[in-house]
Amino acid sequence: MKRSTNLRLRREKIKVAWTGICGSDLHEYLAGLIFVPVGENHPLSHDKAPITMGHEYAGEITELGEGVEGFEIGDRVAVEPIFSCGKRDACREGKYNLCKDLGFVGLSGGAGGFAAYSVVPAHMVHKMPEGLSMEQGALVEAAAVALHAVRVSNIKAGDTAAVFGAGPIGLLVVEALRAAGAAQVYVVEPSGERRAKAMELGATRAMDPTDTDVVAEIRDVTGSGVHVAFGVTSVPQVLAQVIDCTRHEGQALVVSIWENEAPFQPDTVVLCQRTIKGTIGYRNVYPAVMELMTHGYFQAENLVTKRIEIDDTVAEGFDALTAEKSQVKILFKAPA
Amino acid sequence: MKRSTNLRLRREKIKVAWTGICGSDLHEYLAGLIFVPVGENHPLSHDKAPITMGHEYAGEITELGEGVEGFEIGDRVAVEPIFSCGKRDACREGKYNLCKDLGFVGLSGGAGGFAAYSVVPAHMVHKMPEGLSMEQGALVEAAAVALHAVRVSNIKAGDTAAVFGAGPIGLLVVEALRAAGAAQVYVVEPSGERRAKAMELGATRAMDPTDTDVVAEIRDVTGSGVHVAFGVTSVPQVLAQVIDCTRHEGQALVVSIWENEAPFQPDTVVLCQRTIKGTIGYRNVYPAVMELMTHGYFQAENLVTKRIEIDDTVAEGFDALTAEKSQVKILFKAPA
Repeated sequence: MKRSTNLRLRREKIKVAWTGICGSDLHEYLAGLIFVPVGENHPLSHDKAPITMGHEYAGEITELGEGVEGFEIGDRVAVEPIFSCGKRDACREGKYNLCKDLGFVGLSGGAGGFAAYSVVPAHMVHKMPEGLSMEQGALVEAAAVALHAVRVSNIKAGDTAAVFGAGPIGLLVVEALRAAGAAQVYVVEPSGERRAKAMELGATRAMDPTDTDVVAEIRDVTGSGVHVAFGVTSVPQVLAQVIDCTRHEGQALVVSIWENEAPFQPDTVVLCQRTIKGTIGYRNVYPAVMELMTHGYFQAENLVTKRIEIDDTVAEGFDALTAEKSQVKILFKAPA
Repeated sequence: MKRSTNLRLRREKIKVAWTGICGSDLHEYLAGLIFVPVGENHPLSHDKAPITMGHEYAGEITELGEGVEGFEIGDRVAVEPIFSCGKRDACREGKYNLCKDLGFVGLSGGAGGFAAYSVVPAHMVHKMPEGLSMEQGALVEAAAVALHAVRVSNIKAGDTAAVFGAGPIGLLVVEALRAAGAAQVYVVEPSGERRAKAMELGATRAMDPTDTDVVAEIRDVTGSGVHVAFGVTSVPQVLAQVIDCTRHEGQALVVSIWENEAPFQPDTVVLCQRTIKGTIGYRNVYPAVMELMTHGYFQAENLVTKRIEIDDTVAEGFDALTAEKSQVKILFKAPA
């Protein structure tokens, strides 16, 4: 942890409290390295493997680098781990999640949250509201992905929605849709445990795509289809269902990242003037996520299914998330 | 022409002046029947083949059916040939181009414009402004497709655009983009004659996809890609180019109708938060098209490349449109 003893300008040292395991972390473990740079340094972090992982975390500020303003030692903060260039069109427009060199502390470099301490640039931290627990702080990053997806969608209060895939992000999308006032939220998910969790979190109905024609059922219960359907799985055959279950001028919001092409007949968007839109990461949304947490959304008691120590990372963390569909969010307790 | 001697309630008899040949007419001739109902009657027109074709036409009212208000014999009118149910969600929302039973006079039934007279419901006709020629009236339908596509897109004055395919509709999209204030319009088209026509109509640059990497060139000249790219061809490989030449949060507007699937990697929309949107037909836009015609857009002198008599339909009409890339719009002069 060289960085933690080498505080640079406008950086902060944070005593990590809790860190979540993300699907991306699991993907690096199972199929990687993908986002973690190998061979060449990341252009913004100037780091490459091995790095300290962990990008969903919160903690307490223990040191302030030179020039840091607006924070004090002892502040409880959630880390927004995005690196971006700050210089080109997307960044200049404030759309830093669309930077070509987009990276994440704990994936693309930097000293991530699977550690006792982390040092990050001051602009990456957000003070947490009074009354929000450190566990909630570790959930802000994942909830930000879901809230951003819902905010870039066309959903309006009173609209109907579908969510394909009720993994951790899909479930958070269900909650974000409730926050956005969706009148009905239909969830499509093969795992019975995940369907049950979706219902707990406020879904209107949860359907098993292995034993029902979900597109026909959604069109049947809604009359003409949902206003917005979220694809939170990259199973290629599902894309057409996400599109087809929407009404005229409906929207298919693609949240997942894809390894391969998916079957696509453009007439499925042309003849009904539908839209397919992609969403990646989040931007400018951490304060809103924390505010919604204080209103009862994205609660740790509903989402955190396991708390582990750092020595149990593989067996109790990665392996459990891979094997057990009942797991939503597993948090590490940072070492003292 | 049974209909023309059997004026029903709220219908009008029109002495046809000019009728355009549309790509859809050509498609029926070359690959059909497609839109023309065979075997079963169309649910709204209650007609099937053989029908009188022609859906791009204008003429003069010669008779008014019982109950028609707001029109007089002698009025010069452009026909908006869409059939829709008027009852279900899309129609009730005014989105009649998205009716599941969408049909067109001259394709799905009815007495079309390739004739001396046509009888249509009164709600299908629009009085033409003073000073607009009958030839202009015959161009309103095709221009409406292009203007509608541009109006449902995200284009804003000052934005950059690309148009893939400079057939008749692609060329009209170039004009509609000029009307919408697009600062730059890049056209991609293999035919040199069509590229030259696109430049005449106001394109910024016309590129040959057979001898240049058009995505790289568009990204190069625009910095980060265009705001909106229009796909006005259903060549499967072009879809990815339409998407890839847009900037972050750019939009691919699919105007063409597709016979087959197209290769699609969803990450091309996810990682840049791009949008793919479909557009079909037009709605509520005839008056605006005619208004823009009086301002100098969509001019017959630029678009009508041939005027023929009805006996020359096949050789001088359909066959010429198929063989000659220099043809844009061929008009029939209606028999006396």
